[in-house]
Amino acid sequence: MKESKKDRIIDAAVRLFHTQGFDGTSVRDIASKANVNVALVSYHFGGKKGLYEELMTQFLEGHLQIMKNELEKTITTNKELVLSLIKSLLEYQSKNHFVARMVHREMTMDSVLVRELMSTYLRKEKHDLEEIIRTGMKRGEFRKQPLDFVVIHLRTMINMPFQSPHYLSELYQITTTEPYFIERYMKHIRHWVDLWLCKNQSEYTTTTTYLLPRSIS
Amino acid sequence: MKESKKDRIIDAAVRLFHTQGFDGTSVRDIASKANVNVALVSYHFGGKKGLYEELMTQFLEGHLQIMKNELEKTITTNKELVLSLIKSLLEYQSKNHFVARMVHREMTMDSVLVRELMSTYLRKEKHDLEEIIRTGMKRGEFRKQPLDFVVIHLRTMINMPFQSPHYLSELYQITTTEPYFIERYMKHIRHWVDLWLCKNQSEYTTTTTYLLPRSIS
Repeated sequence: MKESKKDRIIDAAVRLFHTQGFDGTSVRDIASKANVNVALVSYHFGGKKGLYEELMTQFLEGHLQIMKNELEKTITTNKELVLSLIKSLLEYQSKNHFVARMVHREMTMDSVLVRELMSTYLRKEKHDLEEIIRTGMKRGEFRKQPLDFVVIHLRTMINMPFQSPHYLSELYQITTTEPYFIERYMKHIRHWVDLWLCKNQSEYTTTTTYLLPRSIS
Repeated sequence: MKESKKDRIIDAAVRLFHTQGFDGTSVRDIASKANVNVALVSYHFGGKKGLYEELMTQFLEGHLQIMKNELEKTITTNKELVLSLIKSLLEYQSKNHFVARMVHREMTMDSVLVRELMSTYLRKEKHDLEEIIRTGMKRGEFRKQPLDFVVIHLRTMINMPFQSPHYLSELYQITTTEPYFIERYMKHIRHWVDLWLCKNQSEYTTTTTYLLPRSIS
């Protein structure tokens, strides 16, 4: 019962923060929408700010878990690994698009919270992405390029649709939460990864079974 | 004299909105920092909201002007045109990085103002970018790819450094406002444009002088 009320509070908060913003939402609004006693918000989250931070932390923990699951899969090439990872991260953001947008917007701020989230979660994300790219380069699958900008470029393209959904819907009538979006976007991503990240396909045989390096799995 | 006071108000507002946010900044703060009478803010901008909108409008008008200037240059290939355009837009954002970040953050909101700015300024930006890419494809310089995602990808990479400066400084110690940043970033961009956007270099001669199409200039 308690778990369910906690989840209802989280669900209500996500929707209210999204439509009314953090400042425009009161603990009372959240409790009312969740149909729980207002004291329960303080009890579970220590107030509105704690709830907001909890939403972001949960989202980023889920994000890292997705990456971990992907890295543990048996995949034959690092190209396949990158594409599968991108797709899973897009699906995760699409499923949680309200929170995703909230997190992306918050991350543009310069605050103690943001610095903490970056050093806890995004540092780990960076590390994992670097490992995948570095290993792909070592194996001769990926072109040799400065690792930093490759990783930055990758994560920028993973986050873009959920960071700027209004730009896409307003000017392109693209709705990033519709099921066919990820399919369409992945076509673009696949083409880009092929041409820019990978060496000429003929330079490595896709039938070779690569084992994941110890440092990734 | 009046022009100079107006400029001082704008300058003060940019700095205060950046450090304290829109909600955390009062008209009195702005007037005090600009060393002008508080009534002058209302007189010139009709209040804080008007001033905020004026900052964004000015920035986006400057952005379109940069694009216009670039498109009027005599440039031999569409690849050169794209690279020169990207560089100028990066320099413009670097010079106005406080406002750039404010605009990028505001653009993630779903508001009447954002929708107006998009249909006024970003629709024109989209149109110009599409023309450059479409012409490059027609001339056989660029690979045939769906135009929409090419344009979206391009503008994402132009805006990224000024949309997420903290991510870059916190995790990569990259300061996007330092002079060498654009040089480094352009190396990455050039490589990417070469591999992903352009057809094999041998397929077109870079010495041919192309005239800009009527629809662009």
